[in-house]
Amino acid sequence: MPQLLHLDSSADPARSISRQVTARFSDSWHAIGTDHSVIHRDLHLNPLPHLPTSALHWAPHLRTSEESVDAAAEALQTELIEELISADVVLIGAPMYNWSIPSTLKAWIDYVHVPGVTVPFDGDTAPLVGKPAVVVTSRGNDYTPGTDAASTDHATAQLRQVLEFALGMDVRFVPVDLTLAPRVPALASRIPQARANLEAAYSAADELALLLGGSSAGQE
Amino acid sequence: MPQLLHLDSSADPARSISRQVTARFSDSWHAIGTDHSVIHRDLHLNPLPHLPTSALHWAPHLRTSEESVDAAAEALQTELIEELISADVVLIGAPMYNWSIPSTLKAWIDYVHVPGVTVPFDGDTAPLVGKPAVVVTSRGNDYTPGTDAASTDHATAQLRQVLEFALGMDVRFVPVDLTLAPRVPALASRIPQARANLEAAYSAADELALLLGGSSAGQE
Repeated sequence: MPQLLHLDSSADPARSISRQVTARFSDSWHAIGTDHSVIHRDLHLNPLPHLPTSALHWAPHLRTSEESVDAAAEALQTELIEELISADVVLIGAPMYNWSIPSTLKAWIDYVHVPGVTVPFDGDTAPLVGKPAVVVTSRGNDYTPGTDAASTDHATAQLRQVLEFALGMDVRFVPVDLTLAPRVPALASRIPQARANLEAAYSAADELALLLGGSSAGQE
Repeated sequence: MPQLLHLDSSADPARSISRQVTARFSDSWHAIGTDHSVIHRDLHLNPLPHLPTSALHWAPHLRTSEESVDAAAEALQTELIEELISADVVLIGAPMYNWSIPSTLKAWIDYVHVPGVTVPFDGDTAPLVGKPAVVVTSRGNDYTPGTDAASTDHATAQLRQVLEFALGMDVRFVPVDLTLAPRVPALASRIPQARANLEAAYSAADELALLLGGSSAGQE
C-alpha cells in the first residue's frame, strides 16, 4: 500500500497557507483509495530537539573515536530516517520564515542528511535516490523567476541542495507566493494575485497527488 | 564600556572551528581593556525553543486580533532583542550544516527579526542600522568565490539577507573553508590549505576585534 510521509512545519496551525496546501495534497492522496496511507509528522506541534551533537551528522562507522552519541538521540535519528526511507512519497510544508526555512524543519534536515547512511560517502548505497518529494513553499512576497526577490529565496535553494542534489530525491516545488498580501499594505494591490496563486497551488497539489499516487496510470 | 554580544551555535563544543575563531575574537576584545565586556550566549548548550508561534514574527501592534502570544515566549523574545540592541558589536559563530545554518541559530534569527520592532514596517525606527557584526562561517568544503561550491553556501546568503539587508547591520564575514579536509578522503590533499585558512581566520579575528573595539583608533 502506497505510503505518504506528510511533514508540516508552519508555526501557525490555524491560518497557515502551507498547511492548507499540504492538507489538500494529503486529502487527494487518501481519495485515490483506502490503501493509500499517510503518516503525518507535525514538526511544529511535536518539534524535534535541535541536533544534540554534530556527531549525528555522520554514520556510526564514520564517527571518530572522540565522538559519542546519546542512545536516545541516535534512536530518534534512526526512527526519522527509517520513516523517510519507507515512504513512497514525501510531502513537506515549508513556509519561508525570514528568507529561509523554519528552525523546526532545519532540525529535521540535520537529523536525516547523514553521510554513510542517506548520502553516499565511501561506496555506500543511496537509499533515497529517485524517491518523489513535493515541497510546498509559502512565501510572503512575490519570488517568482524574474522578480527582484527571486534570488533571496534561500528556503527553496537550500531544500533543493539537500533533497535533490545531496539525497538524490525527485523533488517538485509547489510555491505559493504573496501570502502576506492581505497583511502588508505595500502588497495590498496583489491580493487578487495571491488568491489566484493559492488556487493554482491547490490544483497542483491535486494533480501531483494523483500522478505520484499512481491513479493517473491506473495502477491502484 | 563597549559590550560584545558573542553567539555560538556549533554542535561540537570540544572541536568546533567556528568556536575557536569566535573565542579568539572574544579574547582579543577582552585584551583591549578591562572595560571591554562580553555577553556570551551559547545557542547550542542553552538552546532557544523553536519559535512557538508565527505571531512572534510581528510587533505586538502589528498582530491580528486572532493572534495571541504566551507571556513567557514574548518575554524571551524581548530579552533577546534588548540584548542585541544594547550590544556595541555582535559576534556570531555560524558553522555550515547541510549548506545552511544550524537550527539553533535559525531559531535566534526568527526571534530577533521582527517587523515593527527591529525592522521598519510603517515608519518605525530601525534600531540595528549600522551596528557592526562579525560572522564566522566554518565550511567543510571550499566555498571561496570562483569555486563550483560557492553558489551552494546558503548559510552566508541567508545571514547576509537578514543581518545586512533587512536589519541594516554592518556585517563582515570571516569564512574558514575546508574544515572537513582532515575527515573526508577526497579533501585530504587540502589539509595544508585548511591549516592556512584557520590561521588567516585567527588573524582576521584579531584585526576585527581591535578595529571594532576601538583600539586601533586609540579611543579607549
